[in-house]
Amino acid sequence: MEQLKNKILTEGEALSESILKVDSFLNHQMDPLLMKEMGEEFAKRFAGVEITKVLTIESSGIGPGLMAALALGVPLIFARKRKSLTLTADLITASVHSFTKKETNEVTVSNKYILPGDQVLIIDDFLALGQAAKGLANICEQVGAKVVGIGIVIEKAFQDGGKELREKGYRVESLARIKALKKGEIDFVEE
Amino acid sequence: MEQLKNKILTEGEALSESILKVDSFLNHQMDPLLMKEMGEEFAKRFAGVEITKVLTIESSGIGPGLMAALALGVPLIFARKRKSLTLTADLITASVHSFTKKETNEVTVSNKYILPGDQVLIIDDFLALGQAAKGLANICEQVGAKVVGIGIVIEKAFQDGGKELREKGYRVESLARIKALKKGEIDFVEE
Repeated sequence: MEQLKNKILTEGEALSESILKVDSFLNHQMDPLLMKEMGEEFAKRFAGVEITKVLTIESSGIGPGLMAALALGVPLIFARKRKSLTLTADLITASVHSFTKKETNEVTVSNKYILPGDQVLIIDDFLALGQAAKGLANICEQVGAKVVGIGIVIEKAFQDGGKELREKGYRVESLARIKALKKGEIDFVEE
Repeated sequence: MEQLKNKILTEGEALSESILKVDSFLNHQMDPLLMKEMGEEFAKRFAGVEITKVLTIESSGIGPGLMAALALGVPLIFARKRKSLTLTADLITASVHSFTKKETNEVTVSNKYILPGDQVLIIDDFLALGQAAKGLANICEQVGAKVVGIGIVIEKAFQDGGKELREKGYRVESLARIKALKKGEIDFVEE
């Protein structure tokens, strides 16, 4: 998605060979119009696929996930990273390790909202080693819902998550795929 | 906002005299069309007010905040509840105690995104004792930005947050105001 790539080039900061900071439009400040266009792009890429729910994970997945859900006309569910006192119903959980944040979270979804037979589109902001996407897919599979696609805003194609998910048979659509990062330099995969 | 009140009546669960669970459309699953309409309603209520940024707090504020920012044509900033490894720039912080979750968080905003002179609309999902709104307002005031309004999805009008914020001179607009909760019963303020 050209507009996203331009935004990454003009506002993204490659802090190292693995960390890309996009706080100005995705992870802290959000550009609502770009979010809306990304949501519409996800809907376009998965046109023709039956989707009943969009599933993402708090917090940075909520923006793109909500806009994808709006474009698709289906509900968004955002997985929680820890239990909340008002979320007491039966929870489906999976462990997700974040290498960026160096921590492991239990991610939880209520079994009231992801149901057997659901056709789920997973949306997330980043795909690196694929821990979050694998955790969300695991949650769907635990309840007998089908993961019909995985939509990613920025894929770090130099890490193995995307490759592994595609080898497992998931359809992964990434709006921008990064081939390499160096301090101050961002290269995209040519597509 | 009638449509929101109807949703609260049909899907909300009063768990006690103080806890209202609205996981089916706001705090875990989100109804994207209702979110969009709430965003447009906030923009309508604050029409004529100069707004340069919308500020909310992760995670449940992001949906209504993003849709308000989209309707207003300005960026959304979501305050973080703890420090992230990739958010290293100068941070403005305030302490926010959540009575629902029984915990105190440092909330942080980068001083790259809320600037002196900004005209800030604060958006949040719930207003009870007003701790989150006060923390976000405190952050704005620390940098010399002006809080021009506070938009709330659901105000628990039987708690003191709304009264205190209005007495301090803030304009608070709540899309639904709840007069009283009893187990299984929800009463709105007549307006």
